[in-house]
Amino acid sequence: MPQSESVPETQSGDIAAYMRELGGRARATSRVLARADTTAKNQALAAIAADIDRRRDALAEANRGDLGAGAAKGLEPALLDRLELTPARVDAMIEGLHQIARLPDPVGTITDLTYRPSGIQVGRMRVPLGVVGIIYESRPNVTADAAALCLKSGNATVLRGGSEALRSNQALARSIRYGLEQAGLPADGVQVVATTDRSAVGAMIAMPEFVDVIIPRGGKGLIERISREARVPVIKHLHGVCHVYIDAAADPEKAFKVALNAKTQRYGTCNTMETLLVAEDIAETILPQLGAAFQERGVELRGCPRTRAILPDALEATEADWDTEYLAPILSVRLVADLDAAIEHIARYGSQHTDAIITEDYSRARRFLREVDSSSVMVNASTRFADGFEYGLGAEIGISTDKFHARGPVSLEGLTSVKFVVLGDGEIRS
Amino acid sequence: MPQSESVPETQSGDIAAYMRELGGRARATSRVLARADTTAKNQALAAIAADIDRRRDALAEANRGDLGAGAAKGLEPALLDRLELTPARVDAMIEGLHQIARLPDPVGTITDLTYRPSGIQVGRMRVPLGVVGIIYESRPNVTADAAALCLKSGNATVLRGGSEALRSNQALARSIRYGLEQAGLPADGVQVVATTDRSAVGAMIAMPEFVDVIIPRGGKGLIERISREARVPVIKHLHGVCHVYIDAAADPEKAFKVALNAKTQRYGTCNTMETLLVAEDIAETILPQLGAAFQERGVELRGCPRTRAILPDALEATEADWDTEYLAPILSVRLVADLDAAIEHIARYGSQHTDAIITEDYSRARRFLREVDSSSVMVNASTRFADGFEYGLGAEIGISTDKFHARGPVSLEGLTSVKFVVLGDGEIRS
Repeated sequence: MPQSESVPETQSGDIAAYMRELGGRARATSRVLARADTTAKNQALAAIAADIDRRRDALAEANRGDLGAGAAKGLEPALLDRLELTPARVDAMIEGLHQIARLPDPVGTITDLTYRPSGIQVGRMRVPLGVVGIIYESRPNVTADAAALCLKSGNATVLRGGSEALRSNQALARSIRYGLEQAGLPADGVQVVATTDRSAVGAMIAMPEFVDVIIPRGGKGLIERISREARVPVIKHLHGVCHVYIDAAADPEKAFKVALNAKTQRYGTCNTMETLLVAEDIAETILPQLGAAFQERGVELRGCPRTRAILPDALEATEADWDTEYLAPILSVRLVADLDAAIEHIARYGSQHTDAIITEDYSRARRFLREVDSSSVMVNASTRFADGFEYGLGAEIGISTDKFHARGPVSLEGLTSVKFVVLGDGEIRS
Repeated sequence: MPQSESVPETQSGDIAAYMRELGGRARATSRVLARADTTAKNQALAAIAADIDRRRDALAEANRGDLGAGAAKGLEPALLDRLELTPARVDAMIEGLHQIARLPDPVGTITDLTYRPSGIQVGRMRVPLGVVGIIYESRPNVTADAAALCLKSGNATVLRGGSEALRSNQALARSIRYGLEQAGLPADGVQVVATTDRSAVGAMIAMPEFVDVIIPRGGKGLIERISREARVPVIKHLHGVCHVYIDAAADPEKAFKVALNAKTQRYGTCNTMETLLVAEDIAETILPQLGAAFQERGVELRGCPRTRAILPDALEATEADWDTEYLAPILSVRLVADLDAAIEHIARYGSQHTDAIITEDYSRARRFLREVDSSSVMVNASTRFADGFEYGLGAEIGISTDKFHARGPVSLEGLTSVKFVVLGDGEIRS
């Protein structure tokens, strides 16, 4: 196995200089990656996958080092769990790389090429963004996913994972460099920041000359801080306070099935329902059975006074409940007069992530789709479908709750932009 | 003629509060505008146009006030020219409103609606951005154009024009409010800042809770400052250093025609060629005739040493010439070895605006299109075509040299975003 270049070493004092060095290398390689052909990019992805597979032992050892240090530091069990690279997770990482290799390459695609009265043909070509900086928590599997998505979309990447995962990430970085080199692509196309110094994040978000976009993942506080301080555009996902609204004209069976799934299929995901809105005319019909089903599954219900009149076991919801992302088996429930009240509630308390209406009424379905301003709006489907794979986009790097540039699940396309192409035969403007 | 509400008055001390008041009103109306139907928006545009037409005298009087104050202040003739609303410019403004009314409404358009294996249908719906803030120079005709584009794309708008145009802009604001009211739309859908206090700009770019995007127009210094200080996304156009590269395999006739047009059709526009690159193998063939044609039209040539060997009358180009946007009858000319050298020059000195190659060589044309990273890349066509109308997009609010969100001419589509819509029949995720 050829030896890749060693991981750059750094000292705490010169973090800014180190980050600028990484940035400069990323910028320099970004032009090469932008014009890399699909075959080379896919070869690199396959070579990375193969190298991770071959170097499972070294990766496991690095990961044990992280886990040991994390346990010694008293890291919470949930964080240690995320940090762990089990054999199954390594398998999933490898399979993820192959999946991204199989996705169509968006770069260079030309659409809408049409003739204009002047004689020129005008179209749009999809192009990489340039250099993508990703800041994420201590989940080493994200390193491989993010590198693969950015590489396939023709971007150079600077990855800054959580400091607890440094050893695991550096082990993965070695495989990534190796894969790039094997495919004849610049090894600096994906760089993994080799310092745990927190000032690296501050430096990374303030280098518009080297980094074109920042994608932060992690807690709301971190993302808000990065958004506030970044000198470059940020694709961000703040939080998901998702609603299901059961309309008076809902099919009770669909309502039951979808509401239950939206809450209980998984609790810790951003597209999980956090608030159930029920039209008052259907509440007596639907809530008793649904409430029992939630309680059977151990979901704590917090209701408005009229909900509690129907579901006496529900706790009292406070104002704070309406805009809380529980990420837990807790659900707030509110009775609303009608569609307008539901839309108002969502506009006021929602997070513009994913909201669904359950109804058989054509006009209300149409209004909900148009008037609810969220990254995903649904009719008669579980909010849990808001996901790059379920939407057919392939893997996602996050779900954007912004409106600008990319909205909803961000996959290869969200990591690209378009430019105009003009094909002429000597046309001039008169 | 019904009387519209009066223009809000303000004092310099409470500019921040005043801007927040405008912002709050814009945010409140943005939801109404987002769901306004096409007919109402078009009625408003027609009513604005009719009111401007009826109130030509009052508008001319306001404009005379601005011109008089500007002249007294010693404003440059070029600025006074831009400030003037001649009858022809008022005609053009009215025609512009009608043209925007005739453009297809992008809002609510659903594309790519496809069935997924789970049974759900997933598509994308085009939606307004929300509240658009526009900061522009003292050109009152921009007030009507910008208001119309934002209105048609379903956005609420806060317009801050140059202080020298305050009277003219307030006269137009009255017609815009009137038109909105006539169509049953909220009069606050378009608000024109009624103060010349410069701190209004600083306040406007730092209200993410009220303003979703800022579009600055004007000098490079202003745009750079706004980009640096804005707390919301900025769609910006910095400058246009556009290139035409005459490849060795160019058809000399097309090269002559296109290069001449790209420079001389208009000098002051951002898509005008500023640097001509010529492959050394064709320079002797093409440059003598082309140089003479430029000089005949009064274009000052500044060449590299090898250019000056062919065109002895050309001045000597300095390093600074290669990245200067002259906006004047001046052209820098450089001989390059080949396509690679041309692409390198453009990458180094260009502004990612618009660049063209003149060639009959298929592979080089294809490489230029792919490898030059500008908002418009062209083969055998004049850079002057980089324009919303010429591209068939309708009117444009600017030409973005950013990669993020909108690139190239920004028209209705650039003022919108997309959300995902999911249509189901009770599907749940397993």
